[in-house]
Formats: sequence, C-alpha cells, structure tokens
Amino acid sequence: MTSPLRVAVLGASGRMGRAACAAVDDADDLELVARIGSSDSLDQVADAGAQVIVDLTVPSATQGNVLWAIEHGIHAVVGTTGWDDESRGAVRSALEKNPGIGVLIAPNFAIGAVLTMRFAEIAARYYESAEIIEMHHPDKLDAPSGTAQHTAAAIARGRADAGLGPIPDATEKDPDGARGALVEGVRVHAVRQRGLLAHEVVQFGGTGEQLILRHDSFDRVSFMPGVLLGVREVASHPGLTIGLDGYMDLG
Amino acid sequence: MTSPLRVAVLGASGRMGRAACAAVDDADDLELVARIGSSDSLDQVADAGAQVIVDLTVPSATQGNVLWAIEHGIHAVVGTTGWDDESRGAVRSALEKNPGIGVLIAPNFAIGAVLTMRFAEIAARYYESAEIIEMHHPDKLDAPSGTAQHTAAAIARGRADAGLGPIPDATEKDPDGARGALVEGVRVHAVRQRGLLAHEVVQFGGTGEQLILRHDSFDRVSFMPGVLLGVREVASHPGLTIGLDGYMDLG
Amino acid sequence: MTSPLRVAVLGASGRMGRAACAAVDDADDLELVARIGSSDSLDQVADAGAQVIVDLTVPSATQGNVLWAIEHGIHAVVGTTGWDDESRGAVRSALEKNPGIGVLIAPNFAIGAVLTMRFAEIAARYYESAEIIEMHHPDKLDAPSGTAQHTAAAIARGRADAGLGPIPDATEKDPDGARGALVEGVRVHAVRQRGLLAHEVVQFGGTGEQLILRHDSFDRVSFMPGVLLGVREVASHPGLTIGLDGYMDLG
Amino acid sequence: MTSPLRVAVLGASGRMGRAACAAVDDADDLELVARIGSSDSLDQVADAGAQVIVDLTVPSATQGNVLWAIEHGIHAVVGTTGWDDESRGAVRSALEKNPGIGVLIAPNFAIGAVLTMRFAEIAARYYESAEIIEMHHPDKLDAPSGTAQHTAAAIARGRADAGLGPIPDATEKDPDGARGALVEGVRVHAVRQRGLLAHEVVQFGGTGEQLILRHDSFDRVSFMPGVLLGVREVASHPGLTIGLDGYMDLG
Repeated sequence: MTSPLRVAVLGASGRMGRAACAAVDDADDLELVARIGSSDSLDQVADAGAQVIVDLTVPSATQGNVLWAIEHGIHAVVGTTGWDDESRGAVRSALEKNPGIGVLIAPNFAIGAVLTMRFAEIAARYYESAEIIEMHHPDKLDAPSGTAQHTAAAIARGRADAGLGPIPDATEKDPDGARGALVEGVRVHAVRQRGLLAHEVVQFGGTGEQLILRHDSFDRVSFMPGVLLGVREVASHPGLTIGLDGYMDLG
Repeated sequence: MTSPLRVAVLGASGRMGRAACAAVDDADDLELVARIGSSDSLDQVADAGAQVIVDLTVPSATQGNVLWAIEHGIHAVVGTTGWDDESRGAVRSALEKNPGIGVLIAPNFAIGAVLTMRFAEIAARYYESAEIIEMHHPDKLDAPSGTAQHTAAAIARGRADAGLGPIPDATEKDPDGARGALVEGVRVHAVRQRGLLAHEVVQFGGTGEQLILRHDSFDRVSFMPGVLLGVREVASHPGLTIGLDGYMDLG
Repeated sequence: MTSPLRVAVLGASGRMGRAACAAVDDADDLELVARIGSSDSLDQVADAGAQVIVDLTVPSATQGNVLWAIEHGIHAVVGTTGWDDESRGAVRSALEKNPGIGVLIAPNFAIGAVLTMRFAEIAARYYESAEIIEMHHPDKLDAPSGTAQHTAAAIARGRADAGLGPIPDATEKDPDGARGALVEGVRVHAVRQRGLLAHEVVQFGGTGEQLILRHDSFDRVSFMPGVLLGVREVASHPGLTIGLDGYMDLG
Repeated sequence: MTSPLRVAVLGASGRMGRAACAAVDDADDLELVARIGSSDSLDQVADAGAQVIVDLTVPSATQGNVLWAIEHGIHAVVGTTGWDDESRGAVRSALEKNPGIGVLIAPNFAIGAVLTMRFAEIAARYYESAEIIEMHHPDKLDAPSGTAQHTAAAIARGRADAGLGPIPDATEKDPDGARGALVEGVRVHAVRQRGLLAHEVVQFGGTGEQLILRHDSFDRVSFMPGVLLGVREVASHPGLTIGLDGYMDLG
C-alpha cells in the first residue's frame, strides 16, 4: 500500500478552505498536513513535508504562493481567481526551471460545470440559437458569473468551428435591457434568487427543437470532488494546466 | 337542444384569425357565420346574424369594430392589442347605453398564461425573491413580452399585499446588463431562441427553497381554448371585462 | 409591545426539531421555553408556561402529546405523520370540551409545497393531461412521497369539478413499468438522486401548451417559515385545522 | 459548381416521409428524384438515377429496400425501426461485395438526442446517481421510448468505464411502481402528456450538485437536419454505420 499524499490547504479558514480541509481529511489516500491561514508562514508547509498545496486564498496572495511552491518542489492546485496572462507567464517561467512540478489553475472545481462548458462547445456547432442563464444567491456582487463568461467563450469557439454566423435576434425595441448581456456574441442572463447557490443553464435552439444543459451547485461540497481530482492528478501532469477539464476524460 | 351560437371572426386572414376560424368551425356549439378580412364591410357581420364577434385585427381598427358591435347589440371578444385608458373608456360609455352587451378584452388568450399570472400574484406574498424569464422565437421585435410585464405587475401587487420590501440584490458590478430589465421592481429576462414560440418562467426563492411557475405555448392552437371560453361566456358577463381571468374559476 | 409567544418544541433532538428550535429562537416575537426530547416529561412544558407546542416527534407519541396539550389549554402545531381518521376524531372530541384551543396538523410545512398543491387543484380544471414527478434523496424508504399523493388527490378533485374524464394514455406495451404509479387516476413518478432533498414537479398538458408547477426544498430550513406561520396563527384558529393552507391567503 | 445529389425517399406518404421530401426539396445541394409509396416499384428509384435512398418505411420492408439499394450501387440512409443482429448481418454481407457503398441506420435523427446520448455516456463517469425521464404525446403505444433505452445503455457503459457500482436507492416500499422501469440498471420514467411530441431529460446527481441534459423535439421538422446530414455524408462513409453520431464531430 502506498503512503497517503501529503496535502497543505492555504486559505484554510475561508468557506472553501474549510470545506477543502474536511474533504482532504475524509479521503483515505490523502493526508492533511497543514492548514494555513492568512497570518501563517509558508514555512509550515515545507516543514510539514507537503507534496501538494491547495490554494484557496485571495488574488493578491495566490501568485506568490504558487511561485513559492514551485521553488520548493511542491505541486499546486489553485482555485483562487485573479490570474491574468502576466501572472500565468511567471508561473510558466518558474516551471521551466522545475520541470517535474505540476500546477493546475482551475476557475471552477465543479465537475458538472466543467462538463457543461465542454458539452456546450460541442453542441454549439449544431444549433442556430444559444443563450445562457446563470443563477446565484442574491449576495453575489458581480454579474454575469465567470463560469457563464467562460461558457459563452466556449459556445463562440464551437460556432466558429462550424462556420456559424451571428445568432438570430430581431429585437428592435428593448428599452429596459431585458435581452441581457452580450458576451462573445452570446446573450447571458443573470438571475439572483434567495435559496440558490450557483446554477447555470445553457439553451440551444433549432427549428422545432431545443437542447438544454443545466448544472446546479446546491452546496459548496459539490466543488470538493473536483478539488480532490486535482490533488490526485497534479503530480502526473507536469507544467501548467488551465482548467480541470485538462485532467478529465471527456472524449 | 339549443341552437349554436353565431360567431363572426374579424381579422380572419391573419395567423390568429385563421386558427380562430378553424376552432369555431370545429366546435359543435358554435357556428362560424362570417370571416371578415381587412377589405370586408362590417355589414356582413350584421347580415350574417352574428351574436358574437371575435376581433383579431390591428390596433387601428379594433376600437371601431367593438363600438360598432355594441351599437348593433353584438357581444365582442377582443384579442387585438393597443387598448389604452381612453379607448377602454369609450367602450364603457357605449356599454352604459347597451347594458345587456358583454365585451372581453384579453391581452392573452392562453389559459396557462392567465393561470401563471394569477398564481404568481398569490405566491409573491410568500417569497423574498422573484424573477421572470420569458422566452420567444427570435423574430419577435420587442422585449420583454407584454405577458411578462403583466406578470411583473401581478408580483408587485402580491408583494405589496404582504408588505414586502424590495427584492434583495447585492449586485455592484454588471457592466453589460446581465441582470436584465427592472419592471415594477421585478427583474425580467428575455431569451430569443429558434424553435420556441412563447414561454414564461416565474421563479420565487426563499431560504432553502424555490417555487417555479412555467407556461409553454408550443403552437398558436394553444390560444384557442381561451378564445372559445371567451366566446361562450361573453353573453353572460355584460359590461367590459379586462382579462380572461374574469371568466375563470380561480378560487 | 406584546410579550413574545411562549413555545415548546417536542422532538427537539431530531433534525426537524433542532431546526425548529433554532427558528423559534431566532424569531423576535417568539420565545423558546422548552426543548423536549423523547425521555423528557411533558410536565416541563406546563412548568415552562408554554402557550404553543410544536410536535415533531414520532407517530406513536404524537396523539398523546396533542391530547395532553389540549387538556392543559395549550395550542398545538403538529408536523408528525401517522394521523388517521380515528386519531383526528379523538382530537376533535377533546377540542369540543376546550373550545378556545387550536390544533394544526400539517402534513407539509413547506409553504411552496402547499401553494403547489392548491395551484394544481385549480389548474387541473383546464388541462387534458396531468402527471407528477417527485424527486428525493436516495435514502428515502418509500415511494411515492406523501406530498405527491396529496397532490394527485388535489388534481383528481380539480378534474372532477370540471367534469373531466380519464387522462388520455394509449400505452399498450410497458413491460417494465416505466409509466409509474397510478394514484387517484394520476400518474406519479419517483426519482431518487444524490444531492437532492425534496422536489415536486406537476405537469399539465393541453393541445399546443404546457403548464408546470415546481417546488424545490434544498434544505430543511425551508420548512421553518411554515412552522413559524403555524405557531403565530394557531391561537386565532380554534378547533382542528388540517393543512397549512387553512392559515394562508390563497384567494 | 457540383450537381445536386439525387435522392429518393421511400415511405414518402408517411408523416416522416412527407417531412423528408419537403426537406430534400428545400435543400439547394439535393434533388428529390423519386417519392416512393408502399404501392410503388423500386424500379422507379433506379430509373430516376437516385444516388441515395432515404428509407422511412416499415420494419417488414426496410431490409429488402436496403439490400436492393446496395445491389444497385445506391447509398442508403435508414430511419425505419425493427433492425436486429440478423438483418444488420445481411447488410454487412451485401456491403462486403459492394465496398464503395455506405449505409446509415439511425435509430434517431434528432441531432440533439444524439448529443444527449453521447454527453450522457461521458457525464455518467462522474456521478453517483443517474435517472432518465422521457416525455411523449399520449398517443404513443409503447414505454419507455427507444431513445431512453439507448440512453440508459450509454449511461451503463459510462458507469462501467469508471468502475461505478449500482446506483444508490434505499426504496423499501413502492406498492404502485412509482420508481419506474429499470433499464440496464438505470431508472427510466415515461410521461405521456397532450401537447408534447418527444422529450428526454437525463439527470445526474452527486453530493450537493446536479447535472441535467434535456432534449425537446417540438415538431417532426427537428429530425430533418439529421436526415440531411446523413444524406450528405453517407457516400463518404462506406460500409455500415449504426447511429448518426458516427457522422458527427463529437470530440
């Protein structure tokens, strides 16, 4: 029997961080060796002999954490937002000098959301119309969600692959903006509703038919299978991977 | 056995008009005595001995048609849009002089849409959040739909009855308008999709729960049961009735 | 300012009981004066001066608890199942001797489920087809749910009111029972799915259209507004009331 | 510019056949050269110089039609049901002697239904629970639908790939069969509702989340893009292909 993989969670006192600690703790093949809060030193991660960090911190801290991990020969699974071309470039440079190390930056750990994006890209090739409705709790500060924006981009790629033109829309009069946001040529609608957590509906339409892809996250625990998949797979995927789909069998 | 009710359809060559002619023709208790197009004289309606007209014409013609019917002692069932306070007032005045005559002006003949609006008003009393998503074919020129606007008003009445304040929404950043239109304090989203006809989804949310009312019109024939209900009931409802719900048992 | 209403929760250590204690505790106009577990004496309820009991115990205990409360001049809100004609009759007899006392027996405290049942009864009058899909977590022992059975009965009443005959169904070959259960003439389907709690979908169909009523309980807290509504209203509804809808404004 | 592809429709007087004739007729790159009814001779197909037949006949005729086409060097696109291992074997033998000819036997021409089946197989690897709800008009004679059965088989394959065991279900008491049919280890529910045509919902559940795939065929025209895709591609796919997905880019 192999030893459990040694995991440190950074951002351990946030809501996602606490859920990740519990999930790692519950997994027989993983060992939680460090819970790092914002006031803790990264030295604790090294001292604890962690093989993988899970970064669920804040945009201002995540790049530094990941570069530190690479330099210390530790793989990184990152759920924090705020990455851009420049910060990803810095990670790629660091990884070139540490070729055995894997880093996964995943904008969304919900496996169902990843499947929805992938299926949306494929289905988009076959339908004249496509729209997205994302639904979240009313305490969310921004609209539309990042997942909806990524899904719009996936649909745009699928339509481009198939040589499809603009989505048909004869609207002439919409004084109050009921048609929602236009993201990559795709209409995106954001619903805010008490009792919901994070939900996405992608609708495709053709003459006489409709295809719907829908993903519902009712609870933050729904992100944990994706986090654990990342933790287990990161060592066998050296280099930088963007998106959990890079570790999934979607063929 | 009673004689069939004698019905004239005005606007008989439009899509709704043709469907109405077919529906009246198929009903054993009704007799289609005149199909009136835009170039036909209303005298044909009187000559044919019609007891009820179904007006499915255009905003510029409907008021004149209805006033003519009242003066000739003929009941009227009206699906044409474009009525305002002034034109409704003119009908009320005419009806005072012809007290036995009934006029029904129905913005929506889909019984399911009427039920949805009524249920929405009741449910609105009990939920913190409420939003509307209307979905139509991509050739529709305006957004949001009239039905969605009426439903938003019904929700606003229900919330006012229950003393509820504004719907919670923490959105601070929505650069592209993903949150949709605000109608009577209720967010309304309009989807345009090939293969759809006319659909409305009303979502209510409270802590830990959701209530959804959804109506789908797949085909214009779905409006015909409402038209026939109006035709059969108009004579027993003298005066002006706004909305098919005035003839329905919703208690 | 009036004093808070004094409430005792029976079955306080079960999942629903704990949620009810928390909800009463959080309400400014209510005071939780006793948490009674299965080994506690009802004397504590009297000693604490409770004005209302919330009974969330077990079928074998609930009737005795309610009769005890009536005799002690305490109102009762009951969510426990297992009531039949005989036990309800015993409660009615006891209430005749204590005419000021109110008892509410509610098979379902989710306001949305109550609304769904009421709306289903009304809508059933207007549609040729009606079916029910209930969805629950996979640990549920029985199918279909009690709520689905009550909803089927409500649909049957609505159809009878409207003089509708049997629901059309040409199925000749269904070797594995895909058409589900027939309850009061209405097909009921039970889905069992990890991640769900308690959900009900009622579908009505007519030529060219569909009406859907859907209620989702994502979390047991969704039952608490109904429990609190019952607690606040029971004193003003003397006698036995079956169903939370008796306290709601559904007209 | 290339000449249009010459197409004969067999079973041209049925509902699907008429729709196929209209669709071929409307396509600029196709020419409808023969409409063959049940009393017409296949010689007309040869005389008209057809390059592809579309067989939308009946189980008793389809095998003979396809073998005739192969022998005459004509490709075949087949939507008729009733094929089994033996009849497919006969087609394979005939194709060995005519290696340039393509035959497509497609149980479902709705591209959305094909996508749903493919996506279901992939998603099934990642979820503990999976169930299918198929919904059709109430004049359908059999339940569950063939598409639902194929989807259940696809889910079973996906679960086997991932090493998943039986779907969890604690049901002990289901006297009326509300849990539906068990097909390849997957529960399948069949709804029959006036106003619907052909609809399939596939639900996947895991802790705290849900993924839904839904396909709606509102009108038989929704099958035509799939028929035309088959007609256009069959010549470049020699041999026997089962299922429209063999011609689609689903990677």
